[in-house]
Amino acid sequence: MPVYEVRFQPDGIRIQVGDNLTILEAAQRAGIVLNSFCGGIGTCRKCLVELPDGPEPLRACQYHIHSNLVVVIPENSRFFEQKILEEGISRAQLLDPLITKYHVKLTAPNLQDLRSDGRRLVDALSPGKIAGPHLISWPLLKKLPCVLRENDYDVTAVCHDQNIIALEPGDTTGRLFGAAVDIGTTTVVASLINLTDGKTVAVASQTNPQVTFGDDVISRIQYCRDNKDGLEILHRRIISGINELLRETCEKSGVEPTQIYELTAAGNATMQHLFLKVPVAQIAQAPYVSAFADAVNVNAAQLGLDIHPEGNIYIMPSVAAHVGGDTVAVTLATAMRHSDKINMALDIGTNGEIVLGSREKLLACSTAAGPAFEGARIRQGMRGAAGAIERVHIHEDVELLVIGGQAPTGICGSGLIDAVAELLIAGVLDNSGRLRNHDELPENINPALRRRLIKFEGNPAFILSFASQTKHGEDILLTQRDIRELQLGKGAIHAGLVTLINHLGIETSNIDRLYLAGAFGNYIRPESARRIGLLPDIELAKIQGVGNAASTGAKEVLLNKQARQHAEQLSREIEYVELASRKEFQEIFTSSMMFPES
Amino acid sequence: MPVYEVRFQPDGIRIQVGDNLTILEAAQRAGIVLNSFCGGIGTCRKCLVELPDGPEPLRACQYHIHSNLVVVIPENSRFFEQKILEEGISRAQLLDPLITKYHVKLTAPNLQDLRSDGRRLVDALSPGKIAGPHLISWPLLKKLPCVLRENDYDVTAVCHDQNIIALEPGDTTGRLFGAAVDIGTTTVVASLINLTDGKTVAVASQTNPQVTFGDDVISRIQYCRDNKDGLEILHRRIISGINELLRETCEKSGVEPTQIYELTAAGNATMQHLFLKVPVAQIAQAPYVSAFADAVNVNAAQLGLDIHPEGNIYIMPSVAAHVGGDTVAVTLATAMRHSDKINMALDIGTNGEIVLGSREKLLACSTAAGPAFEGARIRQGMRGAAGAIERVHIHEDVELLVIGGQAPTGICGSGLIDAVAELLIAGVLDNSGRLRNHDELPENINPALRRRLIKFEGNPAFILSFASQTKHGEDILLTQRDIRELQLGKGAIHAGLVTLINHLGIETSNIDRLYLAGAFGNYIRPESARRIGLLPDIELAKIQGVGNAASTGAKEVLLNKQARQHAEQLSREIEYVELASRKEFQEIFTSSMMFPES
Repeated sequence: MPVYEVRFQPDGIRIQVGDNLTILEAAQRAGIVLNSFCGGIGTCRKCLVELPDGPEPLRACQYHIHSNLVVVIPENSRFFEQKILEEGISRAQLLDPLITKYHVKLTAPNLQDLRSDGRRLVDALSPGKIAGPHLISWPLLKKLPCVLRENDYDVTAVCHDQNIIALEPGDTTGRLFGAAVDIGTTTVVASLINLTDGKTVAVASQTNPQVTFGDDVISRIQYCRDNKDGLEILHRRIISGINELLRETCEKSGVEPTQIYELTAAGNATMQHLFLKVPVAQIAQAPYVSAFADAVNVNAAQLGLDIHPEGNIYIMPSVAAHVGGDTVAVTLATAMRHSDKINMALDIGTNGEIVLGSREKLLACSTAAGPAFEGARIRQGMRGAAGAIERVHIHEDVELLVIGGQAPTGICGSGLIDAVAELLIAGVLDNSGRLRNHDELPENINPALRRRLIKFEGNPAFILSFASQTKHGEDILLTQRDIRELQLGKGAIHAGLVTLINHLGIETSNIDRLYLAGAFGNYIRPESARRIGLLPDIELAKIQGVGNAASTGAKEVLLNKQARQHAEQLSREIEYVELASRKEFQEIFTSSMMFPES
Repeated sequence: MPVYEVRFQPDGIRIQVGDNLTILEAAQRAGIVLNSFCGGIGTCRKCLVELPDGPEPLRACQYHIHSNLVVVIPENSRFFEQKILEEGISRAQLLDPLITKYHVKLTAPNLQDLRSDGRRLVDALSPGKIAGPHLISWPLLKKLPCVLRENDYDVTAVCHDQNIIALEPGDTTGRLFGAAVDIGTTTVVASLINLTDGKTVAVASQTNPQVTFGDDVISRIQYCRDNKDGLEILHRRIISGINELLRETCEKSGVEPTQIYELTAAGNATMQHLFLKVPVAQIAQAPYVSAFADAVNVNAAQLGLDIHPEGNIYIMPSVAAHVGGDTVAVTLATAMRHSDKINMALDIGTNGEIVLGSREKLLACSTAAGPAFEGARIRQGMRGAAGAIERVHIHEDVELLVIGGQAPTGICGSGLIDAVAELLIAGVLDNSGRLRNHDELPENINPALRRRLIKFEGNPAFILSFASQTKHGEDILLTQRDIRELQLGKGAIHAGLVTLINHLGIETSNIDRLYLAGAFGNYIRPESARRIGLLPDIELAKIQGVGNAASTGAKEVLLNKQARQHAEQLSREIEYVELASRKEFQEIFTSSMMFPES
């Protein structure tokens, strides 16, 4: 597969991508979140970008990359800026990190001024009566007399909140970096941020190296329970994985690892526990609780992360065992806590986390969506990689969009949702989720569709792609069982949505905006997801993909100390709605498996 | 030498002592400070103690130990209690350590209460709306889920200020210990304190193991400068030395090292730097400054001290490079900061630290007293060990008191001061410090004294003990040169006293009390010290020995968090008066070498 380099301006970020990715997808991988109100289907025109020699702005979601490119992103196409403008917070206000640097030229001690080195430094950092950073870490204290004298008292102090954690020769205030890490169960993304201007200077991602010990959270917890050193092994894996990503971002950007003074991390509760080597068994045992929900601060050297040894690691606070720091980060990034309107955020993976509410009250729940949306337990399901059917459109016959533009080999989550929605519209599938028999099909149905409806192992199935057109020479089928699997997943999420809506005492129509977080939100067609009842029945214009919002939240707490307070308040304010114990839930779940009337 | 066991009641402290020590001295070594207003000369009757089968109370300073003993100490003979009564602080208020334990029985998580383990614990420690300790250290977090579940949620939390540092099974609130360490240049004393009642449960002391690298501060700094690993070596020495003392106190008292959760340490600036492995060169180079003056808190495991690994080590704040944490501790212990009256504290070793003032203003200085008071540079000088002449009285002839009651081998500091004072009174020595020739002696002088005045190496000398009565069969002499050496030392201290008095704008007669800290204060005869001008000319009743007040101060900050604030305020409030740079100092120093008129 050919590889192209895309360079985003004015950020200066370079990324290597494979053939046929859209600019929207490439930007996403580079950690740049563009607006995609329409969910990337090319209708909202909010993701406009420019090519230096192109005639006019083009839609990032519609432009597929087939060569090296330089892409210029106007400020108002950025999701981040958009949100800030909505909340009326200027960029200048946003940039207020807990890590700061101060360049000071101290007067050398003399008979008229015999203050100790430490007090001399602290006093210089507290001009007038304002109390500045004043606690000198012990490791720094051991170097203090020499660093001051070797540099003629001309130094830069690196401070974390009230603590002076390092002292560097001369003026290094221009070099101040932090890292924000999104620890997903499947993928880990690290962004290296310049804390002097808030810009992302490099991004790196990789598959979570714990994947070899289990695809999902539960199997990793099981591994820790079954193996004496399981926790230690999984912990080391994620630490060394993040160290690799940090090294990569440093190499890309020419930043020294010791110039990174803080790292913020967001993940689900299990990922955050494993990151900190905290036992996880209780997360998977009724009644399912976390060891910690408050934010945790740990010394970088102690945790073994390769940033400045006295740097700080901040782990996002969480809400409950299944509503983790990533959900708090998403909620933070969508600024729901500050909105008078009623917003909903939805982050769908193996679990679906849902947050609903406004400034007055926020509710959250987690539903076991199952792996269908990630292509698992679907007969020919696969992840969203080259060869996956990602779009299905039924007009006269079936039209397919395949990732990589090649012959299809299977179907991924967004294709599955599309296929089911289109079959419902075409009348091939009834609202109960049953594929109709030939004699039950609508009379006016196109014969091209009729011949795709077959029997497979005694049950109905629908041929999405005939063997002659697939890569492996076999039909790609959507079986009745696949549809039932999808119904379980979408039923769980819908039941969660309904329960939260009921619990808040509102109607679906009261929801002002639905934020779709994560890769899922970038790839599905919102109208299909709405048609099958995976999303609530609200106007498409109210649905907004917010990209990797967990990463955005982790960046926000890195860039702004007040955002950190907001995250900690969110963690205590968000009311966790436990679904399994609610009597009505099973009932709602059963009805949620049905597809809505058109 | 025989060894006796003395047991102090009601404290329950046992100590092994050599023959002939007074009960006052033995108590001192056991960390129990008795009143000794008269300086231990047997006149004030403030150190009364009882023997269970003794007929009546006896003076601890006058009773020499020649057998195993049980000694009962009434509350009003204790210096500590005395001071508290003076300041109107009740013992209940005094006991308010930063380390606390809380026994909690948590409810197990259930569907109605899904709080995380951490929040469950924190909430239980913050009853009602009162904010309790709320930060869980990372090492504890790693154990939290297991400790809670293995103990059915019945645990004791160990807290240090806002931090929860440990969790123990069941109710361990009865076992809460701390250690206070006085790191002297010569001697290190560790006291193990029960933080539930404030009582000292064991005391251990040893020679500072750094002594082999230099007797005094300057030679140890030199060692660090001359040897690449010098700092590391001296640091390790003191850490392992303190660990030995901790082990000893634990063995004596049956306390587990992990039940000690905090250690407070006071020493001069150099000792505190070496303790923390902070470079010391700048302490010995003009203009002489410390690396740090503020209090330092360090994790026990990081520093390598064998208490609870998550325990805290608190290092006393200091004033200047030569007015260290020990002086702050002494000042704290004498409560000078809270007195309306003008007090002076004097701590004499190789350096003499002097603090003078009241609630309104406190001044401090350090003077290079030199080693004469410790027996060094004196021809037959020695430390205050067995065989040292410790008291000299001239009546018709010379009467000597020798430590251990044996034949003398040399003279220690207190003996030297006595000898010079008595020779001045007898007219053998003139006020300029010159030993008179035979023809200059007073006419009525006793012939017994006259024959002791001889020539030694061409200069006058005085025979304190004839060869026939000494252990080594040689005369013990006081030479003219010895006297000059003493004059240098006492001159430096007197010049410091005078400078501070001038600087504060008072007269000597305005001084309400003079506290003598350290071993020196316990052994010298105040009237002799006053006669030679080492102490200012104030009434004997105003002079009070306060024992190891540095140790007392270190205990106070261990027992009371407010005392810690006071120490930190003292460190900033005490005005350091730099002597060497003052024009008038050399003049005062020259006149201070003279002995005062009788």
